[in-house]
Amino acid sequence: MNRLHIQTLSLLMIVALCACAPQRQSTTDSQQAVNEVRNVIDAQQAAWNRGDIVGFMNGYDRAETTIFVSGDEVTRGWQTVLDRYKRRYTSSELMGTLTFSDLDIQSLGPDHVLVDGRWKLTREKDTPFGRFTLLFRRTGAGWRIVHDTTTSANP
Amino acid sequence: MNRLHIQTLSLLMIVALCACAPQRQSTTDSQQAVNEVRNVIDAQQAAWNRGDIVGFMNGYDRAETTIFVSGDEVTRGWQTVLDRYKRRYTSSELMGTLTFSDLDIQSLGPDHVLVDGRWKLTREKDTPFGRFTLLFRRTGAGWRIVHDTTTSANP
Repeated sequence: MNRLHIQTLSLLMIVALCACAPQRQSTTDSQQAVNEVRNVIDAQQAAWNRGDIVGFMNGYDRAETTIFVSGDEVTRGWQTVLDRYKRRYTSSELMGTLTFSDLDIQSLGPDHVLVDGRWKLTREKDTPFGRFTLLFRRTGAGWRIVHDTTTSANP
Repeated sequence: MNRLHIQTLSLLMIVALCACAPQRQSTTDSQQAVNEVRNVIDAQQAAWNRGDIVGFMNGYDRAETTIFVSGDEVTRGWQTVLDRYKRRYTSSELMGTLTFSDLDIQSLGPDHVLVDGRWKLTREKDTPFGRFTLLFRRTGAGWRIVHDTTTSANP
């Protein structure tokens, strides 16, 4: 065993240790995730308010597994959620002006972010409102909603 | 460098590699998490149906950060959620018989599990029902609900 071999072995050990360092999420990563999620939500609100339901739906993961829960109803799959929105909001009067507020965005680890918030539709004849809980997942296309549970207030 | 040193170095390398192996979640781990979560939910239903609200609340993480969302209301903190239940369900007539059904339990990684389901209260005068989305986290005390969003149907 010469000096060269010892150096090689030591180097291998260092490489092994570095490569295997626990992949903890840094505060910077999690802050960046929170910012990106906030941007998706802002883009959703903007899309809704220009009457663009497909643009709004861009915030959701385009997958069969995407879930939307409200009242006693569960809607599964991106397309089905889109169809539901299209069926319920057939005019700009019905869409009204959407406001998200009270956002509380927390990282659940490297791949998931949980968001709590309020929604309100300002329309000529009424102002429905309530709360929502969104689960975002890091996807190839960016952070996307994979699960949405929306409540309605009974004013 | 004698044979003993070489053996020691090699052993160190193996230990380093093993200790740092990526901590992926096995299917077995995630199946076990799902089973444990199901047990917590079953225990909650049983506690409720013997009139034991504190036992029911044992399913929630005893922390200030525990969140319960329903209607337009957010309740924060284990004690505050307990107080809310106690205030709303002051008799066994009001508590009725709780049934959870339609449970969909999915692992979100080593530390989080998401649960969708339906709730129904069978009471003498009415049968309120709706859906819920629970986020469980692996805590020192076992799997506990850290976030609950409950919807009510408008029959």
